[in-house]
Amino acid sequence: VRNVCVLGLGLIGGSVLRAAGASGRTVWGATASATDGRAAAADGFAIEPTVRAALRRARDTDALVVIAVPLPALREVIDAIAETTPDCLLTDVISVKGPVRAAVARSLSTARYAGGHPMAGRSKSGWSAGDAALFDKAAWVVTTDDVDIAAWTEAARLAIDCGAHVVPATAADHDVAVGRVSHLPHVLAAVLASVGADGGPLALALAAGSFRDGSRVAGSRPELVRAMCEGNRDALLTALDDALGRLGAARGSLASTGSLTTTLANGNKARQAFDGLDDGTNDKITVQLDAPGALDELAALGLRGGRVVAIDGSTALAEVPPGP
Amino acid sequence: VRNVCVLGLGLIGGSVLRAAGASGRTVWGATASATDGRAAAADGFAIEPTVRAALRRARDTDALVVIAVPLPALREVIDAIAETTPDCLLTDVISVKGPVRAAVARSLSTARYAGGHPMAGRSKSGWSAGDAALFDKAAWVVTTDDVDIAAWTEAARLAIDCGAHVVPATAADHDVAVGRVSHLPHVLAAVLASVGADGGPLALALAAGSFRDGSRVAGSRPELVRAMCEGNRDALLTALDDALGRLGAARGSLASTGSLTTTLANGNKARQAFDGLDDGTNDKITVQLDAPGALDELAALGLRGGRVVAIDGSTALAEVPPGP
Repeated sequence: VRNVCVLGLGLIGGSVLRAAGASGRTVWGATASATDGRAAAADGFAIEPTVRAALRRARDTDALVVIAVPLPALREVIDAIAETTPDCLLTDVISVKGPVRAAVARSLSTARYAGGHPMAGRSKSGWSAGDAALFDKAAWVVTTDDVDIAAWTEAARLAIDCGAHVVPATAADHDVAVGRVSHLPHVLAAVLASVGADGGPLALALAAGSFRDGSRVAGSRPELVRAMCEGNRDALLTALDDALGRLGAARGSLASTGSLTTTLANGNKARQAFDGLDDGTNDKITVQLDAPGALDELAALGLRGGRVVAIDGSTALAEVPPGP
Repeated sequence: VRNVCVLGLGLIGGSVLRAAGASGRTVWGATASATDGRAAAADGFAIEPTVRAALRRARDTDALVVIAVPLPALREVIDAIAETTPDCLLTDVISVKGPVRAAVARSLSTARYAGGHPMAGRSKSGWSAGDAALFDKAAWVVTTDDVDIAAWTEAARLAIDCGAHVVPATAADHDVAVGRVSHLPHVLAAVLASVGADGGPLALALAAGSFRDGSRVAGSRPELVRAMCEGNRDALLTALDDALGRLGAARGSLASTGSLTTTLANGNKARQAFDGLDDGTNDKITVQLDAPGALDELAALGLRGGRVVAIDGSTALAEVPPGP
């Protein structure tokens, strides 16, 4: 069982450290935040005094290094890895994959890298918000392009040990998808919160479930949301244009005919598709990780909405929604 | 304690019947839905065979009549009241107040009416989705214009008996506010769900908390959402224009400067204002319901975000957020 070195101990990194440790692995971490570092040490975790010290320990045991810092801090961490253990086994848990992939290719071309992104979060941040159970049954993307199957498998095993299901995807496909389902919701939540508050105290006093849920993620730390959304600019612009088009069409229809039929019917159908994903009808298939073309097969499985739920030796067990 | 006659036994009407009954009042209902009527009777409630039979019983005991049908069915219920008991004590729980107020003024000018709207809901509908606890600490608007204080007090007492807090507001102020905090969230949820589903199976497989919460109310029955949103067209158009303006500004800023700072900072500030509403710092004041100008005083209190939490004789006890 491979050791795990986590760099960055905020909500996500801190939860990875806890979950990987709970799975029985030897884990340690480092963070630039003295607060998070002290809190993690007080909770009994091995915290190295510096990122470089943590990386030297990773080099000595060929541990899996997990980058868990916000995108703007990536540069610094990559420099430390390049200096200390440039051919390490490497993954990350940053919410955008294209820029991380490019930075690794540029400065860490010898690293055995597969990108990662667990689709789990909370409005609170920092070590204290973390939870070993944060990733239970969550989707955790592991990227399939520019990686070798050994690195992919290491990152996927970590995700599964943390309780997640692995969604294989190319970095580009990942970024387009999360622009729609993760970054757009943050912008819409901010807009909804602002339009509600513009209605004054009466409007906020009348705000109930639809407003509370629709604006929830506007309560997240804006600088973390910025790092996430601005780092995925192109894909988010596409998602914003789709949303603007649909919202404008709703506005036009309501103004001209008084009807919101199309908007609401389409939205309801889409939400039912989402609610129906885990209805127990998924096909169970296997992928041989040591067969030629395994990474392409995995990426195709991800595009169909499939998830790897276990890895047994070199066999990945996956669930895939039945075809249309 | 005044008897209560509920017309319409869906999620809201069924919950009013249960909650008012649980408070110790004599309650009965009627519904055009044979399914809901049978289910309510099976749960031990007094269900009259027709709306007119329920209204005759209301006339005989001067009961409070509660209209709990969707807006498109209002006409029919008003006709039945005009025929049976045109001077009844009357309120409603429909999600838009201007059109109800106008219909009552036109066809039931002798009714002792104050409009109502409990800000509570669920994605499920019908009698079976109802719950006596649905209104616990929820805001429940009781309108203050074109009403007399006796009718206002009767409607407010019902709301409080159902566990709610009463927010006094004019019909127009109510409609503008809910356009922002209740109807707009439904349109945004539909748009988000559609943009997510347009990303295909991979996008839906990666959708997590922000998408789940942001699109939740897209799972509501579209015909009920339509009745609600389309019935408040003017106010919703204003809210949609504000949302389009803010979303377009976010798009423009991201495209031109790469920044979402303003959008996200404003949204975070607005959400914090919402989260801070119940922070325990509210002022406690009283309003004498038998004093001249009580209705104006109540409406002003509602505009400041205040809620009436109890009525003791002719004294209303209210909580109001401290001034800025």
